[in-house]
Amino acid sequence: MTEQGYDVGVDLGGTNLKLALIDGAGRIIERSTVPTLAQEGHEAVLGRMAEGIRQLAAAAPGGAVGAVGVGVPGVLDMATGVTRDLPNLPGKWVDVPVGPILREATGYEAHLLNDVRAFTVGEHALGAAKGAETAACFAVGTGIGGGLVTHGKVHFGLGGAAGELGHQIVLPEGPRCTCGNRGCVEPLANGPGIVGEAVRRVLQGFTTELGHLAGGNLAAITPALVAQAAADGDEVAIEVLERAGYFLGLAVASTIASVAPEVVVIGGGVAQEAGPIYWRAMEETARSHSHVTDIDRIAFKPAALGYDAGVIGAALWGRERSGIGSRESGVG
Amino acid sequence: MTEQGYDVGVDLGGTNLKLALIDGAGRIIERSTVPTLAQEGHEAVLGRMAEGIRQLAAAAPGGAVGAVGVGVPGVLDMATGVTRDLPNLPGKWVDVPVGPILREATGYEAHLLNDVRAFTVGEHALGAAKGAETAACFAVGTGIGGGLVTHGKVHFGLGGAAGELGHQIVLPEGPRCTCGNRGCVEPLANGPGIVGEAVRRVLQGFTTELGHLAGGNLAAITPALVAQAAADGDEVAIEVLERAGYFLGLAVASTIASVAPEVVVIGGGVAQEAGPIYWRAMEETARSHSHVTDIDRIAFKPAALGYDAGVIGAALWGRERSGIGSRESGVG
Repeated sequence: MTEQGYDVGVDLGGTNLKLALIDGAGRIIERSTVPTLAQEGHEAVLGRMAEGIRQLAAAAPGGAVGAVGVGVPGVLDMATGVTRDLPNLPGKWVDVPVGPILREATGYEAHLLNDVRAFTVGEHALGAAKGAETAACFAVGTGIGGGLVTHGKVHFGLGGAAGELGHQIVLPEGPRCTCGNRGCVEPLANGPGIVGEAVRRVLQGFTTELGHLAGGNLAAITPALVAQAAADGDEVAIEVLERAGYFLGLAVASTIASVAPEVVVIGGGVAQEAGPIYWRAMEETARSHSHVTDIDRIAFKPAALGYDAGVIGAALWGRERSGIGSRESGVG
Repeated sequence: MTEQGYDVGVDLGGTNLKLALIDGAGRIIERSTVPTLAQEGHEAVLGRMAEGIRQLAAAAPGGAVGAVGVGVPGVLDMATGVTRDLPNLPGKWVDVPVGPILREATGYEAHLLNDVRAFTVGEHALGAAKGAETAACFAVGTGIGGGLVTHGKVHFGLGGAAGELGHQIVLPEGPRCTCGNRGCVEPLANGPGIVGEAVRRVLQGFTTELGHLAGGNLAAITPALVAQAAADGDEVAIEVLERAGYFLGLAVASTIASVAPEVVVIGGGVAQEAGPIYWRAMEETARSHSHVTDIDRIAFKPAALGYDAGVIGAALWGRERSGIGSRESGVG
């Protein structure tokens, strides 16, 4: 990471717009968070985003930044900065020219990428996958996304869609995924998958403290609560976490077979909350289902940048893209 | 492909050693095939290989070649040219210094790679994936292997093991794979998978012409014979091919989710023999299980170089590696 000025990263989330000003070494030196309020429409959201970018740029030594990068939760045209679909945001985010609007409003080129690819850029540049020639990064939350590093660079693929590791198929006729398929690992190993299995078992009448811990309110069951029960020895909770970790491990094994990474990075809020039982089941399943001779050389690491990976990665992406100007090379 | 002299490619197969002399455009201008006879030991096999290389080199205009590449069926150290394990060859091919032995015997540096990665190099350079920035190549035979192209180059990953697309897990608790796992797509969609399902159905007593077509000899059932019965409308044969194609399609869908290729290439003898019903089931399953917005932009193509992809790819790999000398970059 060379020292080369300051850049702004933005993470467009369903709840909050997170913005950060980073220095040449990728350190966050200023940050801000404002509510997304996507129901107000994209004009209002992008207005808040532009204002946040201007404020952070003004806070940079010299009063300006080199580049702006924006991570968005969905599909987009990376070459033009126009969204195709951000399905999880209220309001219709189809064909919204986010990049051009931000340029108009801030004077900066804003380079867009998928938010989980931004997470991958961040973890590869400065986090758990730092320096890797080949890496696979999983982000486990309400969904499961990810990103791949090959030839020492984040791999975007056709339409920037590469890295949708949560849509690897591990159980034909498994639960319906939000993508429309059956069998994706996502609904088996994500937050709703863990909570749904826990609720099912409580309702089935298995002996468990989960209902009690949730104060009798099944809607209060979270991955963190399941992990808490499991840590106290609750066998139903342990089974739920092991099951979810097992399925994630099958997907990790498929990724290892395909990509042969030096390092597998697992991040995202749910992976963190679900704790060591989930992690152990994932890693043991992945290792025991990988036939690669060098499986012992593959490192399994938790993501290192936490909730900042997205904004840091977005800023670094903006920096990289502004450096290569308008040249396109298969990432659009 | 620039015109830059002549190179030799070798494909070390279980039955035959295939060798080819290619020109600067990757055209085969001379070839030879000798029996592998691996049971005679690696010294004898490598002696025959060296002799074949010398003969082809002598046949090149000028009497010499630039480089030698060798595709081997298994795991190896690409940096040193030493095998780690070639499990399907008779004789113990563990820690055999194939590269150094060939250099000693022929005077040429011999650059080794996995045989299915050689297929991928060939298809990417001159075949169905030509010019692709991102591609996924499957070779379906007795096993299922493959290779990935990312950033416009074949991706090797840790230990050169990337591209083992047949070991993606699509059916937990599915049949045992030769790698030791359960659930890999390989035994569900390869030659033995097709034949095994056909034999099972014949023995179960389903109404089918398969037993008759095989002359009452179940050992005579092949993927080609199943395809022939299916083409004649035999419903059991059709079901067997659709089932195998379905599972291959699930694995292709997982690869698409991970890699987002512009082109999916399917090659290998069994894929060719299994015919259009197998292919259609594969492609329809892969497309219907892919949530990528641009799924319609992904091309599905049969491999274009046929049985020559391996030797051409090996020769091109030798050329590339000799060009970059002894520099290593995560491919070893």
